Amino acid sequence: MNIAQLREDTPGCKEKTHFNNAGAALPPAPVLKAMQHYLQEEALNGGYETAARNAEYVDCFYGAAAAMLNTKAANIAFTSSATNSFARALSCIPFQQGDVVVIANEDYSSNQLAFLSLQQRFGIQLLRAASLPAGGVDVADMEKLIRQHRPRLVSLTHIPTNTGLIQPVAAIGKICRELDILYLLDACQSVGQMPLDVEEIGCDFLCATMRKFLRGPRGAGFLYVSDRILERNWFPLYIDMYGATWTEKDSFQPEAGAKRFQDWEQSYALLAGSYEAIQYALDIGLDKIAARNKALCKSLRDGLQQIPRIHLLDKGAKQSSIITMSIEDADPQWLMMTLRERDINTSVSSRVGALIDFDSKGVKSALRLSPHYYNTEEETQLLLSALAEILKK
Amino acid sequence: MNIAQLREDTPGCKEKTHFNNAGAALPPAPVLKAMQHYLQEEALNGGYETAARNAEYVDCFYGAAAAMLNTKAANIAFTSSATNSFARALSCIPFQQGDVVVIANEDYSSNQLAFLSLQQRFGIQLLRAASLPAGGVDVADMEKLIRQHRPRLVSLTHIPTNTGLIQPVAAIGKICRELDILYLLDACQSVGQMPLDVEEIGCDFLCATMRKFLRGPRGAGFLYVSDRILERNWFPLYIDMYGATWTEKDSFQPEAGAKRFQDWEQSYALLAGSYEAIQYALDIGLDKIAARNKALCKSLRDGLQQIPRIHLLDKGAKQSSIITMSIEDADPQWLMMTLRERDINTSVSSRVGALIDFDSKGVKSALRLSPHYYNTEEETQLLLSALAEILKK
Repeated sequence: MNIAQLREDTPGCKEKTHFNNAGAALPPAPVLKAMQHYLQEEALNGGYETAARNAEYVDCFYGAAAAMLNTKAANIAFTSSATNSFARALSCIPFQQGDVVVIANEDYSSNQLAFLSLQQRFGIQLLRAASLPAGGVDVADMEKLIRQHRPRLVSLTHIPTNTGLIQPVAAIGKICRELDILYLLDACQSVGQMPLDVEEIGCDFLCATMRKFLRGPRGAGFLYVSDRILERNWFPLYIDMYGATWTEKDSFQPEAGAKRFQDWEQSYALLAGSYEAIQYALDIGLDKIAARNKALCKSLRDGLQQIPRIHLLDKGAKQSSIITMSIEDADPQWLMMTLRERDINTSVSSRVGALIDFDSKGVKSALRLSPHYYNTEEETQLLLSALAEILKK
Repeated sequence: MNIAQLREDTPGCKEKTHFNNAGAALPPAPVLKAMQHYLQEEALNGGYETAARNAEYVDCFYGAAAAMLNTKAANIAFTSSATNSFARALSCIPFQQGDVVVIANEDYSSNQLAFLSLQQRFGIQLLRAASLPAGGVDVADMEKLIRQHRPRLVSLTHIPTNTGLIQPVAAIGKICRELDILYLLDACQSVGQMPLDVEEIGCDFLCATMRKFLRGPRGAGFLYVSDRILERNWFPLYIDMYGATWTEKDSFQPEAGAKRFQDWEQSYALLAGSYEAIQYALDIGLDKIAARNKALCKSLRDGLQQIPRIHLLDKGAKQSSIITMSIEDADPQWLMMTLRERDINTSVSSRVGALIDFDSKGVKSALRLSPHYYNTEEETQLLLSALAEILKK
């Protein structure tokens, strides 16, 4: 990996020390250019006319996303975010009163809210597996819940937004596959950070966003849908003319592939930027990205442990490129803003976005650092020095 | 209205004769620049950091959209399309087996599909009001259906995508308001083409897209939600952390305004472009836009009637900036492509997108012309000459 070249490719590297890749990463130039160029072409030639002319190019998105997940282009739908992917996936399941859904305490807040809404509307029963004292879902407890309740759905967030934890998603997938139980994975924070293989994970749906570790545009994401689901002939509740053909006055035929989960209207500019971002990650190699991220995080975690007043909050047997900490006698929001004045980007996770996890840790908010492969050891040292200096007083 | 200046503002006017505004209009330069600039800023400074810095600017979108519809900013949610707005609106209604929904034959195909899907999932009963022989929904028949069935919802497409018709939306709204019945309006093709007033129309939801007559970006739209709905405390089925606060482990509080219908993640670049597009339309004045469109369409319709082999298909007491026609012994798709080679953009509507309407007219597809205020009389003559020459044989 030629880091100098990769940074040269990233206009933002000259401006900021960016440790907010779990928020939105700095895109490489090909991603920015593809979108700006596409928008320009639309403005000059018309939106539909440009789409017709670029049909083959933008179609490459599906193949690239599929290659990254070890699946086929026909199993990928383009969406506006991971949360939107999640909603579309949920919407194809005909929930009935009393259906059990098993999730984890650490699951993303928006996913928890969607299930609470389904609970209110349809009377589903939401069960959360216990967490291990060392952090992360207790696989044995989740397995027990699954075997006992034979749930309609098991849902898990691969890497929670608010903690460095990596959940054991393949172990849960193995149980779901054995019992033929639907398994929905939110890979919002893992996609682009590490290799993902939907066959190995054994999930039926995988939700991804473009703006985080994939370094793509905001307002873009995608959904993987397994052949098992497609063969059931399930389709999203609010299917449109892209997802189905209106065959007779009162009947319709859903599309064969995951296309049925997508809307007719979309931003082709964001789709083009998304393709470029995935191709960029594939060209580097996700295994190399994961290895470099691991090294960067180790060095950062080691350094953080040397700074007084910083308490790392991350638990779990396997940790990711998300590092969270509470600060003695200081508000993480203030710290984030102080770092931002020094052109160092970080972010803050707050209780409202991670109620169960934060309550268990007894914190109201946390500073979040999320390095990515294009960060350097020099940047890590710059950040550590800044933190030490700011927190010295 | 200074047409020369407005065309100078529109880079695409130098490239194409664009009669496909009902597909996607040519955006004015401020729209294109806002998006390109915003994407650039995100790439240089980070997505979250740019959003924080531009919070006030992008927030202007809601006020501008509200001003255009005669409502308040708190009644507007930003979405990815009119179809997406439609789905979000439908998703807040707790449909029960046997609930009646009244629509029109001319309603947009994606809307019809969403209702057919709800029919399969929840057993709603879908009733379509009769059409008048002269075209358009028979208000008396729709009123009869409404009074007889007291439906859960009345839904109407203001201007169908495939025909020049303008539906009598305020007449239907008056009946709905009298009987306190939910009224959902798809204004995808009318917004930006003419003034719209949600109080005058009397709707509970209004769905809009940005790319058509508003001349904004693709992949962007918005939803108006009435105070009547917001006061009911209804919320979309797949509400997320933008639309609600996770208050306790198993409870949440939806936001007060239409914000509850929106997702946390969005493309701020598209939002910026959307704001600029609405402001541009407001600066010109929608009454002036409507008047000019009417004049352009009259001249175009008059000219088309002089060309052999062209049969205008539009019905209805009031007609819009959508002009559709069948061509004797020629495929509209071929005609569209032939015109495109001459840098004239038009589009084709096909039966699958307008099953009931096209079957009643006995056509499989139609050529669609959709002028907008920035088109000129010279362009109209150029198009008419091209059509006459191509169809002469």
